[in-house]
Amino acid sequence: MPHSFNADKPKTQIKWLASRTQDEWLALVVANPIELLIDHAHCERKAAGAALQLMFRYMCEPGLAEVLSPLVREELQHFDRVLALLKSRGRYLEPLQSPPYGASLSKQIRRYEPDRMLDSFLVAGLIEARSHERMSLLASNSPDPELRELYADLLASEAKHCGLYWRLAEKRYEKEVIIFRLKNLALAEAEILSNLHPEPRMHS
Amino acid sequence: MPHSFNADKPKTQIKWLASRTQDEWLALVVANPIELLIDHAHCERKAAGAALQLMFRYMCEPGLAEVLSPLVREELQHFDRVLALLKSRGRYLEPLQSPPYGASLSKQIRRYEPDRMLDSFLVAGLIEARSHERMSLLASNSPDPELRELYADLLASEAKHCGLYWRLAEKRYEKEVIIFRLKNLALAEAEILSNLHPEPRMHS
Repeated sequence: MPHSFNADKPKTQIKWLASRTQDEWLALVVANPIELLIDHAHCERKAAGAALQLMFRYMCEPGLAEVLSPLVREELQHFDRVLALLKSRGRYLEPLQSPPYGASLSKQIRRYEPDRMLDSFLVAGLIEARSHERMSLLASNSPDPELRELYADLLASEAKHCGLYWRLAEKRYEKEVIIFRLKNLALAEAEILSNLHPEPRMHS
Repeated sequence: MPHSFNADKPKTQIKWLASRTQDEWLALVVANPIELLIDHAHCERKAAGAALQLMFRYMCEPGLAEVLSPLVREELQHFDRVLALLKSRGRYLEPLQSPPYGASLSKQIRRYEPDRMLDSFLVAGLIEARSHERMSLLASNSPDPELRELYADLLASEAKHCGLYWRLAEKRYEKEVIIFRLKNLALAEAEILSNLHPEPRMHS
């Protein structure tokens, strides 16, 4: 199966990531498009929730709410679009078992400031980068034209959000400090994904 | 001072409320416009957070996310507008001591379903109704034209949101059950506001 997939991965991969998604992941999710779509709706709402939580935690930090509030709105617009597509196919949101990805990544966030804020930005950016990489794969390889279009439309925003978290970090921390920490977190992210979660999920 | 305020309160008051705002409140907030504006920005973000929390809690309830997701976005647009106005006056968000209003109202929400969902809708609607009533007062009585315009623009949304929570309830509960419970909650809300919080707040 792997050789049948479109191979334009390197072009679309954001530099944040320390590993490429395995072909086994693509095979798993392409075979389960609706379950992936439901999971994706949950991912968009969780991304909105995480950004809002960050906005609340650092409410009085100048220049943060102005960036995070539009980001929350965009995540919710994507959520609405995925939900509408699900409904057009006679489905709705269903509770799905989450892969350990988000919780494991959150554990990497150091507990005390200023490290906590930097890690929060970088972890959020890494999740966006991974979503971007995987949506690129889906946009190129999903056999369903409507799903290809959906993922192609959404992946540009994932890249934009990733850049946005980068700039939030860049304005507040030394570049060397950010890059050093990002490398470590990217390795942890790759390690978390090295064992494929048995269910078809965006971050399995 | 009371007689100097515009008296068109009854026309703009939503029927949910069991009491009218006292003139002392208006005198307090009109004398502290920037502090009220900062509080208002916090109110908008809290309204967004509460609606998102409700959306998460009842994620798989059909017809709910479709209503709450656009509502969260609208609250955040208002937050952005208030924040921009604050910044144009050389201020930013600051931590403010909250009045006991929100926490006291939340305590009225019964803990078990299906009561919990109904109470959540009605409490959210009551807060919108009170905001609408108070923004009407500010739109008519603020001495600052820019603030009058702001509150006049936002108050229509407060009424719309109130109607939206009403319809969410109406689709899921018997009308008599809703009205009976709303009357009780409205009395509790009026009781909470009967002692004016000493700080100038939207819900003091």
